[in-house]
Amino acid sequence: MDNPIITLTTDFGYKDPLSGVMKGVILGISPSANIVDISHGINKYDVREAALTIGTSYIQFPPRTIHVVVTDPGVGSQRRPIMVIAENYYFVGPDNGVFSIIFESEYCEVVHVTSDHYFQRKMSSTFHGRDVFAPVAAWLSKGIPASKFGDTITDFVRLRLPVPAQPTRTTLEGEVILIDHFGNAVTNIKASDLERLRSESKGRLRIIVKGTEAPLKEYYSQAADKGLYSVIGSMDYLELFVNRGNASSDFNIRVGDGIGVMMAAEK
Amino acid sequence: MDNPIITLTTDFGYKDPLSGVMKGVILGISPSANIVDISHGINKYDVREAALTIGTSYIQFPPRTIHVVVTDPGVGSQRRPIMVIAENYYFVGPDNGVFSIIFESEYCEVVHVTSDHYFQRKMSSTFHGRDVFAPVAAWLSKGIPASKFGDTITDFVRLRLPVPAQPTRTTLEGEVILIDHFGNAVTNIKASDLERLRSESKGRLRIIVKGTEAPLKEYYSQAADKGLYSVIGSMDYLELFVNRGNASSDFNIRVGDGIGVMMAAEK
Amino acid sequence: MDNPIITLTTDFGYKDPLSGVMKGVILGISPSANIVDISHGINKYDVREAALTIGTSYIQFPPRTIHVVVTDPGVGSQRRPIMVIAENYYFVGPDNGVFSIIFESEYCEVVHVTSDHYFQRKMSSTFHGRDVFAPVAAWLSKGIPASKFGDTITDFVRLRLPVPAQPTRTTLEGEVILIDHFGNAVTNIKASDLERLRSESKGRLRIIVKGTEAPLKEYYSQAADKGLYSVIGSMDYLELFVNRGNASSDFNIRVGDGIGVMMAAEK
Repeated sequence: MDNPIITLTTDFGYKDPLSGVMKGVILGISPSANIVDISHGINKYDVREAALTIGTSYIQFPPRTIHVVVTDPGVGSQRRPIMVIAENYYFVGPDNGVFSIIFESEYCEVVHVTSDHYFQRKMSSTFHGRDVFAPVAAWLSKGIPASKFGDTITDFVRLRLPVPAQPTRTTLEGEVILIDHFGNAVTNIKASDLERLRSESKGRLRIIVKGTEAPLKEYYSQAADKGLYSVIGSMDYLELFVNRGNASSDFNIRVGDGIGVMMAAEK
Repeated sequence: MDNPIITLTTDFGYKDPLSGVMKGVILGISPSANIVDISHGINKYDVREAALTIGTSYIQFPPRTIHVVVTDPGVGSQRRPIMVIAENYYFVGPDNGVFSIIFESEYCEVVHVTSDHYFQRKMSSTFHGRDVFAPVAAWLSKGIPASKFGDTITDFVRLRLPVPAQPTRTTLEGEVILIDHFGNAVTNIKASDLERLRSESKGRLRIIVKGTEAPLKEYYSQAADKGLYSVIGSMDYLELFVNRGNASSDFNIRVGDGIGVMMAAEK
Repeated sequence: MDNPIITLTTDFGYKDPLSGVMKGVILGISPSANIVDISHGINKYDVREAALTIGTSYIQFPPRTIHVVVTDPGVGSQRRPIMVIAENYYFVGPDNGVFSIIFESEYCEVVHVTSDHYFQRKMSSTFHGRDVFAPVAAWLSKGIPASKFGDTITDFVRLRLPVPAQPTRTTLEGEVILIDHFGNAVTNIKASDLERLRSESKGRLRIIVKGTEAPLKEYYSQAADKGLYSVIGSMDYLELFVNRGNASSDFNIRVGDGIGVMMAAEK
């Protein structure tokens, strides 16, 4: 590949030199790699948030991009390093569930990376981002076939991400899965879930959070006041927002909070 | 252009994958683009701060750099996407005033971007950074002429940025327009304003903030103690500082606070 | 050099456009430079932390990488700009001790950079990152020989970084030198120091912090509970950690706190 793209998603923050060091290692092996930061601000040790972050962004990159994800509280233990070969993308990271949304979204082959001649010669037990995942991604970007890195496995770890319940034909029960930088509360209810509800029964969609309604808007500034509203966000998930405000802090909304959707009779 | 430079200035923060996603979209269209982050730390929804940030940094980049700015509380509404063709640079972003300092500084042609075949095929109403501004900048970097993106407009939005008043021949009244990372309080008084005052009357420049003097120094460490001092900063604006301290928090200085300058008789 | 690598380590933070501006200046001179951020999150004015950050990460980059470090409270004063030619790397920054660990680790030639035709034409007295260090690194990356930038000096500034004491044959007294993003407390005791102790006397290594023992583990998740433990970190320094916790905040550990190591008789 010419100028192969390698992305990084980690919980390393922006103070320590860890992400910079990974880039140094990659460029030592694959000098023409184009390294792109997706985020180094994942909550520490939060595998679920890392899974959501890469799962909602990987598809925006060109085919053959190699996505490296390092949120890795089990580093140094028996947890396996893996490489995921999806339809158009590669993924490299720990076998702890960080790729769960990819596994749900498309057919994937998963390789347990065991060929340690692709690792850094001197291995630490605390920083496999530098010693395993960065060099493996770099060698992959140089055209080494995935099969050279180890054997296919099928017992890889999948997180159970919460799925909305549909207790009746006209209602959905979802939950908040992420608070973003703007304080928007992203839920696990997809635009397609709302479409299904609409197609199955007549009426008006009502979005209910903590007993009050968050009317559905088409875009943020359509909400004229500082109330709580909802919108289909850019990743196609229903999200709660306050126009030019912060839904999470203004209305005390947290990850895990329930959200109800119902079709109500038109008044 | 070989390796065209595209810069990004947003209020997206460093946790969400939004800026990474914009880079993925750009590289999908313009694989040789060299993408440079100016800042993703603009205060949320703060168009004025975004205008100051790009307005004080764009000129440090090579000619033909394309600067993308996304601080866009009106996303999804009728606010227009624009492309600005300045003397040596291009700018892409929302028509909400983020380019006001460019408009003040040089002759600009402004195009209302309407050619939606340059947008992402699937459009959201909440993330035009990804769906409009990134792809438009990427296509522009591939050599598509600006005229192909839409028609020229002249009624684009300009912010009124505060300008120092000169109530008498020997005095100036300005204000703090930005607090930087070091707590320095950048004012809207330029080095050239001070020069003008000096050329018009004799004496010694006195800088007064909240009733006390902030003596003018040539560089930070020239201030030997922890008092409040002033200096001509790197963008040629007068700024207030505390040597190895934080002028904003140590002296409770905020954006909008007044600052007076006068020529005093030499003692 | 093709695609020369230039890294940046600063205390500029992620809000102001300073690091972006440095990149603009570099690319104006050296368009094919590959600029990599190591950190812009160094504590403000903290030369010691900058020295530790670059000192523990520079070696992970390919040979001939140019490392620029700007933590520069003396900017504008008489403190000298320097270029360091080490065995495989170049360094550019202020002569205030930021390269002290490089000086300790390998043979270095140090040049006092005085050839101001390599500086920005218009010089500020507050931002030499933009006006001196970025352009000097960029010209160096274009193949200008180091000798062209100025004369060799030997009286450059070295910080005295704390070194562990060995009061008896079986004990070491070190201290905490850095708290990382995960709250791990990195000490100045190296893996090789522990090896030496082990080779000189028999028994079991005991790590003592504030009167209690922090048992030595091989990796983080080997610590099953939320107690304080120690591990050899990825930079080969002994560090204190709490598995999936924060050693610094959970146990009130700060930079400068003492740490004792002793060989205890096996029970």
